[in-house]
Amino acid sequence: MGNIAAVLQYDGTRYHGWQRQQNAITVAQLVEEAIGQITAQQVPVTGCSRTDAGVHALEYVCNFRVDCSVPVERLHLALNTKLPPDIRVLSCHPVEEDFHARFSVLRKTYEYQVDTAAVASPFLQPYSYHFPYPLQVEDMQAAAAHIVGTHDFSAFMAMGSDQTTTVRRVEHLTVRREGRLLGVTITADAYLYNMVRIIAGTLLYVGCGKIAPGDIPHIIQAGDRTLAGITAPPQGLFLKRAEYAPCDLDFRRECNEKE
Amino acid sequence: MGNIAAVLQYDGTRYHGWQRQQNAITVAQLVEEAIGQITAQQVPVTGCSRTDAGVHALEYVCNFRVDCSVPVERLHLALNTKLPPDIRVLSCHPVEEDFHARFSVLRKTYEYQVDTAAVASPFLQPYSYHFPYPLQVEDMQAAAAHIVGTHDFSAFMAMGSDQTTTVRRVEHLTVRREGRLLGVTITADAYLYNMVRIIAGTLLYVGCGKIAPGDIPHIIQAGDRTLAGITAPPQGLFLKRAEYAPCDLDFRRECNEKE
Repeated sequence: MGNIAAVLQYDGTRYHGWQRQQNAITVAQLVEEAIGQITAQQVPVTGCSRTDAGVHALEYVCNFRVDCSVPVERLHLALNTKLPPDIRVLSCHPVEEDFHARFSVLRKTYEYQVDTAAVASPFLQPYSYHFPYPLQVEDMQAAAAHIVGTHDFSAFMAMGSDQTTTVRRVEHLTVRREGRLLGVTITADAYLYNMVRIIAGTLLYVGCGKIAPGDIPHIIQAGDRTLAGITAPPQGLFLKRAEYAPCDLDFRRECNEKE
Repeated sequence: MGNIAAVLQYDGTRYHGWQRQQNAITVAQLVEEAIGQITAQQVPVTGCSRTDAGVHALEYVCNFRVDCSVPVERLHLALNTKLPPDIRVLSCHPVEEDFHARFSVLRKTYEYQVDTAAVASPFLQPYSYHFPYPLQVEDMQAAAAHIVGTHDFSAFMAMGSDQTTTVRRVEHLTVRREGRLLGVTITADAYLYNMVRIIAGTLLYVGCGKIAPGDIPHIIQAGDRTLAGITAPPQGLFLKRAEYAPCDLDFRRECNEKE
């Protein structure tokens, strides 16, 4: 039984997130069914993140154990014939027996996309949050600088979540405007439930003056969810990258070597 | 009764094209219903182009005659409250009584988008034609140069179409690659049925060596549809711009003046 990592891209619009659920179609379920059709083996797939309903992924890593007659470098093509067009396998890679898409991950990067134009774009609406209000981007950047670091992020966690520790390390958090689009990009070792969407919502509150950049340290310290901003809606969120130790999975280098 | 021009943007994925039809939902029908809900008047809407099912529009111009209590500069906001998010009115403008979105148009520009990557993007698949084969872009550009000009475009018209004249003037036709995307942009005074999609399909045949650039003058002269390439699928096609005389409708200047 070989341990295989797959890199996926998906449009989350039609799915109830990654994780298998009763009575709702999820990405993991369709990937498991595709693997079953290609290998005749029913195996569970472990994902790098439990993305919510409506959340998208640009480079999602998962792993599974199968005996497979299809060469691993062609397995993505076989799986794609069994998947709907809004889920694509970009590549598959043999990995060590102890590789685990969730526990082996070193850091993950998410991007939150906001459409700031007066009239929402029909093409961007499934992939962004329409927020057509004046935004002070410099204030958002100043607030973001307060969020970077190792903190107890209880104030940025959906209420009712249960975690052994609420301390996370945010390595990077940038706010950038390009034309009508505003992007919030965050890299952290791990995330609390809804953490990225609450950070995005809080930065938007800062951008429109409801929260001052200097309030952020107090909000973090108080650990009070009600002091932070809204939970920005899921369709603006993309899992952009999951990073592993080079000995575990370094598919980007493999891709580059082919060129 | 004022004559009003509206500029729309729509994602054509869910619609059976622009033109009103029995037993199928079209963009014109939903725009007419929105106007009816806002003005309490049932009026027909004239469009600049009969886009096919699945074709998109970035700047679609239409016009209609209503008595309207909503100020014209705010009418787009009112209409958008009655339209689904994949159809947006960008702006409305009072126009002369004789303005006609279809007959007054001077030229229209379409763009055809091709995704050339090995694995199709889930995010581009509703907005492009996935064509993952090596393409000689220079050959496509040489072929495009033969298509520019005033010609009888019978070879690039869907069979069975009925037109009084099949002569059209193609003013510009460019082929450009940007990363994984290849774009074919065409500007003409008017178009035959499926003309852009057949030109795009023919240029792709040139790109992969099935038709030589030097064959194009012969294909045009023979007027034989079977000599040209495939009709590229609708989801790659965007109506990009409809242009009118400045005295008729110059909404782009109006927009710029506001800035």
